Amino acid sequence: MMDFKYIDGGVCAAQGFKASGLYCGIKENPTRKNDIALIVSDVMCNTSGVYTQNKVKGAPVIVTKNNLEKTGGKAKAVIVNSKNANTCNADGEEKAYKMCSLVADEIGIAPEEVVVASTGVIGQILPIEPIVKAVPELVKKLSYDGNLDAATAIMTTDTVKKEYAVEAVIGGKLCRIGGMAKGSGMIHPNMATTLNFITTDCAISSEMVKSALSEIVKITYNCLSVDGDQSTNDTCMLMANGLAGNAEIVSDGEDYKIFKDALYQVMANLTKMLAKDGEGATKLLTCICSTAPDLDTAIIVAKSVICSPLFKCAMFGADANWGRVLCAIGYAEADFDITKVDVYLGSSAGKIKVCENGSGVEFSEDEAKKILVEDEIEIYIDLNIGEASATAWGCDLTYDYVKINGDYRS
Amino acid sequence: MMDFKYIDGGVCAAQGFKASGLYCGIKENPTRKNDIALIVSDVMCNTSGVYTQNKVKGAPVIVTKNNLEKTGGKAKAVIVNSKNANTCNADGEEKAYKMCSLVADEIGIAPEEVVVASTGVIGQILPIEPIVKAVPELVKKLSYDGNLDAATAIMTTDTVKKEYAVEAVIGGKLCRIGGMAKGSGMIHPNMATTLNFITTDCAISSEMVKSALSEIVKITYNCLSVDGDQSTNDTCMLMANGLAGNAEIVSDGEDYKIFKDALYQVMANLTKMLAKDGEGATKLLTCICSTAPDLDTAIIVAKSVICSPLFKCAMFGADANWGRVLCAIGYAEADFDITKVDVYLGSSAGKIKVCENGSGVEFSEDEAKKILVEDEIEIYIDLNIGEASATAWGCDLTYDYVKINGDYRS
Repeated sequence: MMDFKYIDGGVCAAQGFKASGLYCGIKENPTRKNDIALIVSDVMCNTSGVYTQNKVKGAPVIVTKNNLEKTGGKAKAVIVNSKNANTCNADGEEKAYKMCSLVADEIGIAPEEVVVASTGVIGQILPIEPIVKAVPELVKKLSYDGNLDAATAIMTTDTVKKEYAVEAVIGGKLCRIGGMAKGSGMIHPNMATTLNFITTDCAISSEMVKSALSEIVKITYNCLSVDGDQSTNDTCMLMANGLAGNAEIVSDGEDYKIFKDALYQVMANLTKMLAKDGEGATKLLTCICSTAPDLDTAIIVAKSVICSPLFKCAMFGADANWGRVLCAIGYAEADFDITKVDVYLGSSAGKIKVCENGSGVEFSEDEAKKILVEDEIEIYIDLNIGEASATAWGCDLTYDYVKINGDYRS
Repeated sequence: MMDFKYIDGGVCAAQGFKASGLYCGIKENPTRKNDIALIVSDVMCNTSGVYTQNKVKGAPVIVTKNNLEKTGGKAKAVIVNSKNANTCNADGEEKAYKMCSLVADEIGIAPEEVVVASTGVIGQILPIEPIVKAVPELVKKLSYDGNLDAATAIMTTDTVKKEYAVEAVIGGKLCRIGGMAKGSGMIHPNMATTLNFITTDCAISSEMVKSALSEIVKITYNCLSVDGDQSTNDTCMLMANGLAGNAEIVSDGEDYKIFKDALYQVMANLTKMLAKDGEGATKLLTCICSTAPDLDTAIIVAKSVICSPLFKCAMFGADANWGRVLCAIGYAEADFDITKVDVYLGSSAGKIKVCENGSGVEFSEDEAKKILVEDEIEIYIDLNIGEASATAWGCDLTYDYVKINGDYRS
């Protein structure tokens, strides 16, 4: 995979995308943090989304799916609020449609060309009045560098805003892909996790947008776990407006490959940010499973380690309790020989082997401690039976996770 | 299901079972808490076990399976240690066999008639010398009321010993079933969880022992989750010595039904104790899923709620965040209509409906708080599509869980 140049701008990095965000008061909040965001493309976008697989689906998920079905995967705008998930409410869909028509009326497009998303507490009636008042102002504030206002408006328990963008030459033209994400708790790898909005000016057909998104989601957001709870509102949206002027990507080939690699850069970096900002997290955990017989096995094993509460606690305590890694590998539902497995722990402070052929090896506890007190820890697993590899991202389990979630609603 | 009379005695409640326990020093411990236990039956027992499905299996699990295979499901003794799991060690099986032969030599039986189990830290060499010294003393101490010494010897992070026993008239004879269990963390419902030893004087064939155990494990230990980690050493053993003198149960029928009901009482109560003593737990959570289309669906849904870290945190905070219950129901991998689901929360302080037809209903937050500050909380889920029901047990997720597991090895 080639290197891509990081650029600023988040969802506004690509040409022709404006954004804005502001505080409208969906939930009373003395700090007046932004709670509503708008993204608008100057021209129509080929758009594809992946959504939660939870049977309980937020009303906005249902409405966005309906809208994109109606337009055949075309959209021009995104409206998204935080603080209230608009889920499990009798009037949820009505209000999600209302959010679309408010935007459509204000900027003069069809309501079904609007993508809608919400995040926050489940099961509380969404107050629509603040949104009615906010939409004209959001439209007025739209700008080609409004990405930061938008990125902060979708935060819930997030402690930092999450944006990433790269540029790449595709078909001889400079293209940009950028995105923003939110998510901190209720994150578990099964379909796109949390809210993610990716924009690009690359010209690429609806079909290839869909295919690229689903392929890259599988090895990025779907390899992320904070706590094992799969949200009701997960939405990941990719919008391509074609303004870079490259020859439209309509099939597999070199251009498509570069596009996917660039998309991976954006989505993998957002995934890493989501993991690192997991609720209460003090450490980013990255688990790399290599020499697996196939990609799915590598993913399953890497995820199993990232999801283990006991291992997550051990990392919080900087305790080289490799038995817990091996235990989590052992209950991964995949086919491999545990007696061939090697495990290493690493960080910027070094790398040590802790397990060989499924059994412990002697290592220096002092050296292990030095490695594990760092903020970013890598766990390397070699299955020693093939050539596939995958990465999964997570975080440690801490007092603060419990604190944050012991009384989230108040 | 009929009521059974609770009796004292744990693993010694049934006739002809002696037990003992003592501190031998497997891990240096100034408090000299018991760390090794022995159970011996006066006569041969029809014995069946269920074990962890983790690919990483403790050496004792492998040895016990081999032994029971050799004897065709007969055993007379159990030796079990805590503080060291004897797992992922190159010499693990050798030492587990040694534990069997030490007991066999001392009491004059064949080594393969001994069941062996270990629990504790994974991947540290088991010191055999303390066990060599302990076995003669353990045999000397064996007594018909040694159950408490044994039950305390298998504790790791457990804060209380777990014993339960009942009596029942089967085939005109008074029979007893009793057991002891350990387990606090690394508990997840998939095959028998933790260490459990159940003894009975009921006369019942090997085949029916096996069948009863697997049926009751499914609806008791396998419906228990503390933290989602499945241990490497899980073992649940049922030993029947026939001394009650009833006509041997050799097939399905009234006697078998009473036996299973009595076994359920013992195993469900031990399961409840395990959940309540989950690492760091302050609350027992019992989730009852009713009106399900079939037993498997009821189990899957009830377990999904019990396993949700976010819901477990909300219960720690006594927060009636029913959206998290519905969210966890929604990602349960089973077939039902979420728009028919009702949810109630209850405890000794009352019971309230929080969700009807998949949407929230108004309820008094004050009343909810009163219910949720209690130590034992019930979550009732009605799927409203059938007649099956199941119960799952768990606990809240607390600061202390993180504390205990942040540095378990030291």
